[in-house]
Amino acid sequence: MQFIIEHKEGRARTGKIILSHGTFQTPAFMPVGTQGTVKAMTSEELETIGAEIILSNTYHLYLRPGVEILRSAGGLHEFMNWHHPILTDSGGYQLFSLSDLRKIDEEGVQFRSHLDGSLHYFTPETVVDIQRYIGSDIMMVLDECTPFPCEKEYAISSNELTIRWAERCKQRFDASERLYGHSQSLFAIVQGSVFSDVREHSATVLTGMDFEGYAIGGLAVGEPSDRMYEMIEICTGILPQNKPRYLMGVGTPENLLEAIDRGVDMFDCVLPTRNGRNAQLFTQNGIINITNAQYKDDFTPVDDKCECYTCRNHTRAYIRHLFMVKEILGLQLATHHNLYYYQWLMRNARQAIDEGRYFLWKQQQLIKQRNSSHNIN
Amino acid sequence: MQFIIEHKEGRARTGKIILSHGTFQTPAFMPVGTQGTVKAMTSEELETIGAEIILSNTYHLYLRPGVEILRSAGGLHEFMNWHHPILTDSGGYQLFSLSDLRKIDEEGVQFRSHLDGSLHYFTPETVVDIQRYIGSDIMMVLDECTPFPCEKEYAISSNELTIRWAERCKQRFDASERLYGHSQSLFAIVQGSVFSDVREHSATVLTGMDFEGYAIGGLAVGEPSDRMYEMIEICTGILPQNKPRYLMGVGTPENLLEAIDRGVDMFDCVLPTRNGRNAQLFTQNGIINITNAQYKDDFTPVDDKCECYTCRNHTRAYIRHLFMVKEILGLQLATHHNLYYYQWLMRNARQAIDEGRYFLWKQQQLIKQRNSSHNIN
Repeated sequence: MQFIIEHKEGRARTGKIILSHGTFQTPAFMPVGTQGTVKAMTSEELETIGAEIILSNTYHLYLRPGVEILRSAGGLHEFMNWHHPILTDSGGYQLFSLSDLRKIDEEGVQFRSHLDGSLHYFTPETVVDIQRYIGSDIMMVLDECTPFPCEKEYAISSNELTIRWAERCKQRFDASERLYGHSQSLFAIVQGSVFSDVREHSATVLTGMDFEGYAIGGLAVGEPSDRMYEMIEICTGILPQNKPRYLMGVGTPENLLEAIDRGVDMFDCVLPTRNGRNAQLFTQNGIINITNAQYKDDFTPVDDKCECYTCRNHTRAYIRHLFMVKEILGLQLATHHNLYYYQWLMRNARQAIDEGRYFLWKQQQLIKQRNSSHNIN
Repeated sequence: MQFIIEHKEGRARTGKIILSHGTFQTPAFMPVGTQGTVKAMTSEELETIGAEIILSNTYHLYLRPGVEILRSAGGLHEFMNWHHPILTDSGGYQLFSLSDLRKIDEEGVQFRSHLDGSLHYFTPETVVDIQRYIGSDIMMVLDECTPFPCEKEYAISSNELTIRWAERCKQRFDASERLYGHSQSLFAIVQGSVFSDVREHSATVLTGMDFEGYAIGGLAVGEPSDRMYEMIEICTGILPQNKPRYLMGVGTPENLLEAIDRGVDMFDCVLPTRNGRNAQLFTQNGIINITNAQYKDDFTPVDDKCECYTCRNHTRAYIRHLFMVKEILGLQLATHHNLYYYQWLMRNARQAIDEGRYFLWKQQQLIKQRNSSHNIN
């Protein structure tokens, strides 16, 4: 992996990350393809909207289709026919949000599948092994994602465990081989809930371990946005300048713009895809719920400034109709538009940074978002 | 409307139908877009697979989005962004299969919406009016679709009513104006259940009324295939040679090939779309259920002779995975493939007729279908 920083404005920066499966520009938004598919999108459409990297999930892929099939397929890229970079989350977050009866100890996590109750065991080592089978370009360490709110004492001990697990992941990573010819990278995850000193400690210790990139995890789990921004700022102040920073599972357009301003390079979030399937469409003037009666004879595009397939070809009235009659095409068109919007946002953020006008552009975007009559929450 | 017959082999024929929104080649299969969308397919994809005409439905469109919105949109073509021909079924079939508490008399049909129980009234005249609002290139008369089995006495009296309604539809059609500039045509529907003499009478009387095209309705409702083929043969023996014949709601690949052999030019059926969404995929060697365990590590395409997007890009193992984890992309890829298969079948049928080898080609296709270990029913 090669990370080349191109321009900086304050802490915000643009760059590119070069991997075996191709290059992606940063700041980057990664559409979420949890189960080896970005919901309602073909690989071809993902290319069309300008996605250069997608995210998939170790926990889900391990359960279905399972490592055996992924290995026979020659890895996830081949399996799903996506020949650009893939990052896989380790499953840490899913273990703590989806699975039942998890039992966590020094060695790892015992858990029951959320699908059939079957018993499984993840350790830092198995999580690396599974990601070798998946063949993701960027692998994530196993971490414990603390809930919010979280007692400080628990945040400290949990974070120590996450650090020890990161070390074990790195050892396994260094001792294991890629399976499909292309190289893989391993990112660490900074935890520490909303406690500045725990975040500082986590970022400092992990930086010392010299990972290829660093994620900031455990945020957007219920804490106020300002606390989140504060934590991001602490982390990006410590994490090495020359390594990518990835803010996991975040967030709204506003969250992304604020995080970029604080030096974050990579994002993933289910918001554009999940909200799209729930009839919430992102526009340059805020969010609209397309099922609202006001759109029933509105024959304008979702966003008249947008150049996506949905906006070039269809009206609000038609998309509303599709949602009202529960047609699959509604999910397709909404997902397509929302992901395009997130790519548009990143493209424009990069351009603004390259031209040294990011701060101003960000302010303008935020005013537009806040002035809209709709609210994401 | 202009219908040009190009080649004949026995009763089978190829031709083209020229309408304001474009030309389609016959024999033609029309993908079903009941609610103003072919489920899980974009307009662009429909063009890609070679669909030249689609079907939509008066009953459904009348209920949602309603004629007012369709009128404001400038008709269904504009509303759904499909600028090729559209045929609309009159809703006769839906009145008798979907709606509750229908009350039929000489004047028309009173029915309750299957959605909210609201009371509505369709007459031959309103059905024409609604199709004027929809702006379909080919409109269908209001008919009563008899169930199977059906007493002969009922089939006779029902058929007489259908004939009187056809006359009234034609009068309304001739007395009304197109709304959006493009011309529209009206097709009659031959009924008569499985009774040869009722079918003969129906076809003879309707032929005398000089419609622009003729549908054969009330088949594939439970009767044996042989009876269906027999009824088709009776109808196509009477209906005018120089007008298109459209077999409504039929059917399997075998049904289509047999009906083409008996002189049918147009088809519609939910089989490729609905079966696709139920994991049943058509191949040149019969149907496969992609969720079967045998496909879990089968990294070949659904049909290695098929050139559709699905087969060029994805494996059976991946599509099986998508169905197992209930991902929308599975529905998209399956629908795409199945509709492509039906278009492929029609394209090859046309070519075989043009080259005077249809009968032999049909036999080969049927042997392939029957030899497959799977069965559609």
